[in-house]
Amino acid sequence: MSVETRLAALEQRLRAAEDQLEIIRLVNSYGPLVDSGESQPAAHLWEEGGVYDIGGVGRTRAYDDIAAIYDSPGHRALIHAGCAHMTATPRITVHGDSAEAVAYSFVVLREGDGWKFFRASANHWTLVRTAEGWRIAERYNRVLDGSQASHDTLRRVLRG
Amino acid sequence: MSVETRLAALEQRLRAAEDQLEIIRLVNSYGPLVDSGESQPAAHLWEEGGVYDIGGVGRTRAYDDIAAIYDSPGHRALIHAGCAHMTATPRITVHGDSAEAVAYSFVVLREGDGWKFFRASANHWTLVRTAEGWRIAERYNRVLDGSQASHDTLRRVLRG
Amino acid sequence: MSVETRLAALEQRLRAAEDQLEIIRLVNSYGPLVDSGESQPAAHLWEEGGVYDIGGVGRTRAYDDIAAIYDSPGHRALIHAGCAHMTATPRITVHGDSAEAVAYSFVVLREGDGWKFFRASANHWTLVRTAEGWRIAERYNRVLDGSQASHDTLRRVLRG
Repeated sequence: MSVETRLAALEQRLRAAEDQLEIIRLVNSYGPLVDSGESQPAAHLWEEGGVYDIGGVGRTRAYDDIAAIYDSPGHRALIHAGCAHMTATPRITVHGDSAEAVAYSFVVLREGDGWKFFRASANHWTLVRTAEGWRIAERYNRVLDGSQASHDTLRRVLRG
Repeated sequence: MSVETRLAALEQRLRAAEDQLEIIRLVNSYGPLVDSGESQPAAHLWEEGGVYDIGGVGRTRAYDDIAAIYDSPGHRALIHAGCAHMTATPRITVHGDSAEAVAYSFVVLREGDGWKFFRASANHWTLVRTAEGWRIAERYNRVLDGSQASHDTLRRVLRG
Repeated sequence: MSVETRLAALEQRLRAAEDQLEIIRLVNSYGPLVDSGESQPAAHLWEEGGVYDIGGVGRTRAYDDIAAIYDSPGHRALIHAGCAHMTATPRITVHGDSAEAVAYSFVVLREGDGWKFFRASANHWTLVRTAEGWRIAERYNRVLDGSQASHDTLRRVLRG
């Protein structure tokens, strides 16, 4: 192979690896932001107009409607008690300038002298490459309650 | 260094990084597949004849005997209740065309209006590079019950 | 761009990706080491003199004072019961030869026939590149109890 061919192949493969690491980084920024009340930075993990479709709640859009979730009395009570919105490491598939990811998420909440699972969910993210880096176009979330909707969300790993 | 030497070094280093990302991806595909009843795709994370050595259960082999675990009434009951087979991010060591990984895994199960830890384990995976990508040659799993076997499994991080 | 420019860019970008993977690997080695009583290898994840600032406990230094934590009766009781010091995947920012990371950590402890959250914390690591690879210069840990200190620790994701 020519030097040009090898350089081009390296550049393409490295970008794919960097994309996965950036998406892991994006998804792992979410919890620390929402659990410390940084509502606008959390909402800016989405692109403008991006959707958070929350099981049992409905569809909201970035930036302000998503930020409003984290400014609500219910969410403020979680922060005040002590809370971790933990995202398990996602299973990522990159398709050029878009990507998708599937992962569990858990809300671990302080109660008494310990912590409990307050919520456990299946998640599917659709991500887009923007001038500022990867952003969430849609996060689709369903509670792990044995429902068809939760199983269908997990089954999206079959797509990639 | 010559261009040839630098290209060869980049190709080798990039492959090692890609290997780690692919193994993270493989391990993170497991939970969503088994928690949505996708028994055969889950079993195909192993190579044919690959072993799942489950603490308290025994040794089973891919594909059909492993798939049968996820089709059993016991596992179906977990899926129906709402369940996450969550794998913590593994600590991976790549040795050319084989690799090993150590990580915790947790089964988080719905109970009442919350979720609980149904199982917590230590895991060691032996992985092999195949024509279709990385596959599991053996997953060795021991319950985190304070036993020597569980501690010895965790201690395999000292090998890499 | 010249071949030289492209090679240099690839080398720099690949090193940044490798750095993130190595730091993920370092952080994921911690739990298996401390939960199997490998106190000195656990302490050697820090550089000599590196600090572990534990919420509610205080500041200790590598190697021997940190190793002593894992040899203490309290920690030995956790190991004997069955325990996972699980670190969520960190959100990493690399700055040349230093780096920082933010992640939740959880201590999952066996109790009766199940497991419970014994501790949930916010963590910030300062890391340094050494001749032996990445090591921890300081791990700063605060319990997720709704305190300002825990929120400030999580808020360090805004820095990177």
